[in-house]
Amino acid sequence: MTAAEVDDFIFRIFPQIWADDKRSYTIEALTPGGARVRMHYAERHLRPGGTISGPAMMALCDLAMWVVVLGHIGPLEDAVTTNLNINFLRRPAKKDLIGDARLLKLGKRLAVGDVTVYSEGEDAPVAHTSLSYAVPVAK
Amino acid sequence: MTAAEVDDFIFRIFPQIWADDKRSYTIEALTPGGARVRMHYAERHLRPGGTISGPAMMALCDLAMWVVVLGHIGPLEDAVTTNLNINFLRRPAKKDLIGDARLLKLGKRLAVGDVTVYSEGEDAPVAHTSLSYAVPVAK
Amino acid sequence: MTAAEVDDFIFRIFPQIWADDKRSYTIEALTPGGARVRMHYAERHLRPGGTISGPAMMALCDLAMWVVVLGHIGPLEDAVTTNLNINFLRRPAKKDLIGDARLLKLGKRLAVGDVTVYSEGEDAPVAHTSLSYAVPVAK
Amino acid sequence: MTAAEVDDFIFRIFPQIWADDKRSYTIEALTPGGARVRMHYAERHLRPGGTISGPAMMALCDLAMWVVVLGHIGPLEDAVTTNLNINFLRRPAKKDLIGDARLLKLGKRLAVGDVTVYSEGEDAPVAHTSLSYAVPVAK
Repeated sequence: MTAAEVDDFIFRIFPQIWADDKRSYTIEALTPGGARVRMHYAERHLRPGGTISGPAMMALCDLAMWVVVLGHIGPLEDAVTTNLNINFLRRPAKKDLIGDARLLKLGKRLAVGDVTVYSEGEDAPVAHTSLSYAVPVAK
Repeated sequence: MTAAEVDDFIFRIFPQIWADDKRSYTIEALTPGGARVRMHYAERHLRPGGTISGPAMMALCDLAMWVVVLGHIGPLEDAVTTNLNINFLRRPAKKDLIGDARLLKLGKRLAVGDVTVYSEGEDAPVAHTSLSYAVPVAK
Repeated sequence: MTAAEVDDFIFRIFPQIWADDKRSYTIEALTPGGARVRMHYAERHLRPGGTISGPAMMALCDLAMWVVVLGHIGPLEDAVTTNLNINFLRRPAKKDLIGDARLLKLGKRLAVGDVTVYSEGEDAPVAHTSLSYAVPVAK
Repeated sequence: MTAAEVDDFIFRIFPQIWADDKRSYTIEALTPGGARVRMHYAERHLRPGGTISGPAMMALCDLAMWVVVLGHIGPLEDAVTTNLNINFLRRPAKKDLIGDARLLKLGKRLAVGDVTVYSEGEDAPVAHTSLSYAVPVAK
């Protein structure tokens, strides 16, 4: 699937992802073995201290990994996350976040990858996540 | 701190936690070494397929662990999650979720615990999380 | 399977587990949903500082989880660990270690559980592990 | 520290790492933000099925991360692993393993990184690990 096809598919089955009539996320790239997803900055992502909350970063990582998996296996609705491990590295700025996903394995049953998260325009990552997805059996 | 004191503290520094003028969460118990937190069911927690989303479950676990840590170290604002690892076990029903947090270690620098998540009234857990919190130095 | 049957099975397919003509491990209990495995103290488990090494504790957790899984699914050789997450909590004493494994989910494809590790005779855990096992399809 | 200095330091405080009068590991590179460590193939690393065991891969990852951390903070004996999360991706061949470590954060209290593990001469990784180290306060 192309980035546009993944985008259409996700929008169709998961309309909640676009909050307040605006896109929360944009798929910026989908390549063999990788994807880049941008989470647009929004007030509702904040936590105490004025930084972006952990669950907002986790949601970005989960989505970026889903984009990579869908891009490689096609529009299967029941790919589900089985494990997510996140290390929080630095307090993110009040900016868009970029999630760079890398597919480490695409097996018959499990897909595994990691996502490195950056604040827009900065070099030092704010979070790093490893994820496993149960891959549905194609019919 | 008591459950009520933790509840007041969290509400004061993190008002976003109560969405749409309703409590999203209730602290049901705070004991030596543990806490129980309820996440009230809401439409906005859903993901494709009609089950509660991973990030909503992660947010519950993060909050339940925060409640335990605050209950044991007092009202320190800058306790932050450093690592969260979650295994998704079963699709949760469209019900309240209960997070049972257990403190495994309260060190000078790190607090570590786990949270087992259940759908209200059911025995089989829907998710299990391990978390580490960086503990601020008390002044 | 009973504890003795699991023990025989593991010894048959994994003889390396008994080092230097002595048992490295003893299965102390196997119950519905749980197992307790003892790792006998040995010099070769030490790391700098004179405490038991991380990999030795991970090996105990992996074994304890394998015991639980085998006890519930039977003698299937190709159950393999897919994910292991460990938090190191305290420096273990130069003593036997006890691993208390708990099965959180036994699905058709994945088994998930956790293992809490104690130094013999002590109450505060030295490590806590979450593990996922790919469950082979029974023939 | 250079690779040779880290090597000397590790050998001095952790002589068990060289088994049977042979080096078990070689530090192949130490660069700003990274390290490459080779684990020499040995029979005792095998598990049932004839592949290299999980604990042997975890030990390589733990060592590779330790090398990176020491290379950046200097010869401090009490840097200890606090969290390790590993995904097992493919069965490794009966060959040397290469661990490519990357430092994601070097903070005042925690260092965080990941290690991708390959069988010698192959492109697809056999395991991927995220690790956190508690960094001692330099005196």
